[in-house]
Amino acid sequence: MNVQTNARSGGRAARRAARAAALPDNLRPVRPGLEGGQYKPLSDADVARIHDAALTALETIGLADAPPSGVEILTGAGAVQGEDGRIRFPRAVVEDALAKANRAVVLHSRDARHDLDLSGTRVHYGTAGAAVHLVEVDGQHYRDSTVQDLHDAARIVDQLDNVHFCQRPMVCRDIPDNLEMDYNSVYACVSGTTKHIGTSFTDPAFVAPTIEMLHEIAGGEAAWRERPFVSNTNCFVVPPMKFATESCLVMEECIRHGMPVLLLSAGMAGATAPSTIAGAITQAVAECLGGLVYVNAIAPGHPAVFGTWPFGLDLRTGAMTGGSGEQALLSAGCAQMHAFYDLPGGAAAGIADSKLPDMQAGWETMCSNVMAGLSGLNMVYEAAGMHASLLGFCHESLILGDDVIGQALRCVRGIEVNDETLALDQIAAVCMGGPGHYLGTEQTLGRMQSDHCYPTYGNRMSPKEWVEMEKPDLLATATARKEAILSQRPAAALDPRIDRVIRDRFNIHLTV
Amino acid sequence: MNVQTNARSGGRAARRAARAAALPDNLRPVRPGLEGGQYKPLSDADVARIHDAALTALETIGLADAPPSGVEILTGAGAVQGEDGRIRFPRAVVEDALAKANRAVVLHSRDARHDLDLSGTRVHYGTAGAAVHLVEVDGQHYRDSTVQDLHDAARIVDQLDNVHFCQRPMVCRDIPDNLEMDYNSVYACVSGTTKHIGTSFTDPAFVAPTIEMLHEIAGGEAAWRERPFVSNTNCFVVPPMKFATESCLVMEECIRHGMPVLLLSAGMAGATAPSTIAGAITQAVAECLGGLVYVNAIAPGHPAVFGTWPFGLDLRTGAMTGGSGEQALLSAGCAQMHAFYDLPGGAAAGIADSKLPDMQAGWETMCSNVMAGLSGLNMVYEAAGMHASLLGFCHESLILGDDVIGQALRCVRGIEVNDETLALDQIAAVCMGGPGHYLGTEQTLGRMQSDHCYPTYGNRMSPKEWVEMEKPDLLATATARKEAILSQRPAAALDPRIDRVIRDRFNIHLTV
Repeated sequence: MNVQTNARSGGRAARRAARAAALPDNLRPVRPGLEGGQYKPLSDADVARIHDAALTALETIGLADAPPSGVEILTGAGAVQGEDGRIRFPRAVVEDALAKANRAVVLHSRDARHDLDLSGTRVHYGTAGAAVHLVEVDGQHYRDSTVQDLHDAARIVDQLDNVHFCQRPMVCRDIPDNLEMDYNSVYACVSGTTKHIGTSFTDPAFVAPTIEMLHEIAGGEAAWRERPFVSNTNCFVVPPMKFATESCLVMEECIRHGMPVLLLSAGMAGATAPSTIAGAITQAVAECLGGLVYVNAIAPGHPAVFGTWPFGLDLRTGAMTGGSGEQALLSAGCAQMHAFYDLPGGAAAGIADSKLPDMQAGWETMCSNVMAGLSGLNMVYEAAGMHASLLGFCHESLILGDDVIGQALRCVRGIEVNDETLALDQIAAVCMGGPGHYLGTEQTLGRMQSDHCYPTYGNRMSPKEWVEMEKPDLLATATARKEAILSQRPAAALDPRIDRVIRDRFNIHLTV
Repeated sequence: MNVQTNARSGGRAARRAARAAALPDNLRPVRPGLEGGQYKPLSDADVARIHDAALTALETIGLADAPPSGVEILTGAGAVQGEDGRIRFPRAVVEDALAKANRAVVLHSRDARHDLDLSGTRVHYGTAGAAVHLVEVDGQHYRDSTVQDLHDAARIVDQLDNVHFCQRPMVCRDIPDNLEMDYNSVYACVSGTTKHIGTSFTDPAFVAPTIEMLHEIAGGEAAWRERPFVSNTNCFVVPPMKFATESCLVMEECIRHGMPVLLLSAGMAGATAPSTIAGAITQAVAECLGGLVYVNAIAPGHPAVFGTWPFGLDLRTGAMTGGSGEQALLSAGCAQMHAFYDLPGGAAAGIADSKLPDMQAGWETMCSNVMAGLSGLNMVYEAAGMHASLLGFCHESLILGDDVIGQALRCVRGIEVNDETLALDQIAAVCMGGPGHYLGTEQTLGRMQSDHCYPTYGNRMSPKEWVEMEKPDLLATATARKEAILSQRPAAALDPRIDRVIRDRFNIHLTV
């Protein structure tokens, strides 16, 4: 029992001193890979029913439109092509794939500090998507997104503690050639951040040249295969229950080149998936299990993320909506299915339907992000920056997302219960003969940094202070931070020698 | 298996028709009293440890500063006053109170449609607090709150589907006399909404006159006692572990007059409660158990809400903060303790530290509101309108809170899993010989209204529509709604005859 009986000023000085000391990583209040799962939207019986329904769907409905190579691969694994051309999956075939699947997936990064361990219910947040607009906060304006916008986003991600990976969130609409767009997207991300990158390819033929670039950056093919730091976001299905023929070929090619794949099923509940949450999850699970068979038939244990990404729809208008409670439930329910299979999984959260970083964007972004984390989703995609139901990406929102995700992660970390935190001794000491408050106790000071996640941009001033400080504006604060990051030399920039080699061989659109 | 194969326009017409039909209450997508509890921040062992620590605290530390009447009541129930004056509670005394406590509390309303059934993990959201400022969105200005502001807040609450009760959120700073302030606060709320009202009293002597007013409104004492529609928010402790002497006398008086009480323990984690989440919950539980003994010793089974309201503190500055992840965990952990005791319970959520309804306010408000709901908190207090860590109340934020809470309630409602929602038949019909999409299916149309919670103020337009509509501003939309509500005759206005009687006997500050 140690109770400091310092006068307040002494306590304050001690707090200042404690604050000045930087924390080692394992004592930071939040960090990538905290374990979720305290929130279970589905009962065990519900989970079993969804699993069973997904197996039935694969067995009786199956998936259409596999490419010839896919037909060969899947039937070779025991699936059966019907006269209607659909590939159906006997239960044993799915169970076989589940047995072979990689459950210890690590998504690597150029800087190993940022590697993502997707085992258990470890939670990571990052960007993703294919927004076609950049949202300019100044002037409240939507314009076509460019390769420079994408690179800037990657540079910002690189500097945010709580954004753990950089899947390409925007399309480079200033690059009309698809091959150039694909490898420039990768270049823009890789040269902006050392965190794990996700990207997609519009054509199977575009994989090989990009891989050549990645070998160059990695220091050769062996080094790349040892630690592939870019994964392929692969929309291998066109829901409902159809393979995306071209994307399957991209997937085959990526697997050949040792690139991890995200098996992404992006149904829209009410349009390309059933309108019910349970039905949309069932269909997505069925589709991803089909993908899992595909991947493991090509290369058993190839790193794959189980990407059930059902999206919500506003049924009144038929337009997509990503900021709803239904969306949060869709993604949280999926996370519970991933945990049931003990597979690395991902889904979308953090999407705002709002066009701008306003109060609506705040509540939409937090709702699904915190629920995804609490449900133990390994990869929370689209977690920051996304507006207008995925059509717009905003750098300021990405930055503010660092606060949102930090807070969500604090919730995932949860409540620590042990003798020290129960604090009975402390309560006794403070109340009986002690100072009658906890401000100066050793325990309060000792946990000031490690237990509490403080916002970087969020404002906690009193109204009085706030007026004295001339009412600081949240978005102006975010813009200032953006300008500060982008005015520095990118910390993640490629070695100049390698960069020259790449620029000699590829038509890189970013200027040096 | 019924799949409509309408062309798109046919589907749209059908959707329009379905939309036009009003839903009966039991088919509304969200409603008061949905059952939470899917989120459990504490393990069963954690819950047992907190319970045990709270009992130990009551047994060994006890509570100081009971008024003489309280000492008599509590020692009469088996508690023991030590030489240090503290009242200590043997375990059996607490267990006795737990056995006697009312577990079927209904908080009544002037209009029985708004009664709140606090059994199980039923969730209700409402206002609360003692803000001293009204936040004016126009001009981004904080000014002293008035009785008119309070009345306006009640009138707005009355019109919002997802704000289920109206505990007084603001102090009438334009009424210097405390007695007049207390009964005018009640009058301002009761004449603004027929939903359940919560209020507090600054002095035990102020209870009787207010009760006289309530008898008048109820139609006599018997009618009041049958359905008391106002409860007493009672800060019966000054944490740590001290009774608030005057408030205890208020509580005794309220119990005598048949008014339900909210046993409110509002410790600040790091100042008046331990800085750890587990410690702050333990102390709050101990204090409220002490209160439970007190209430049930006076009147066994008197309706009481177990009000563990620990607040967060920014330990860097020592200032209160209510918008953090730590706050969300504090309240969710408390909800789990209420469920353990199977007692009606309440805590605070939805508080913004932000000074204005900006993106920060959005993420802060959603985080704790959705977690409180998912944890099954019966009464979520301070759920809408609160800014600046409780110092400011904003009418526009209250209105936008209706969307926030609606979405949180949709999450609480959760995922329904049954043969219909699993939708296997529908998937088969759509994929094999069907239209290949779910837009027109009977199931999609049938559930368009009952399954989906649509925002009233949140904007889901595409960027194109949004530009065409001249970029509607969220706050302007909320202000327009406020003006529309306040320009109507209050639906909850008192009977003019009763109002005249009250105005004859009391100095009512609101003008007719």
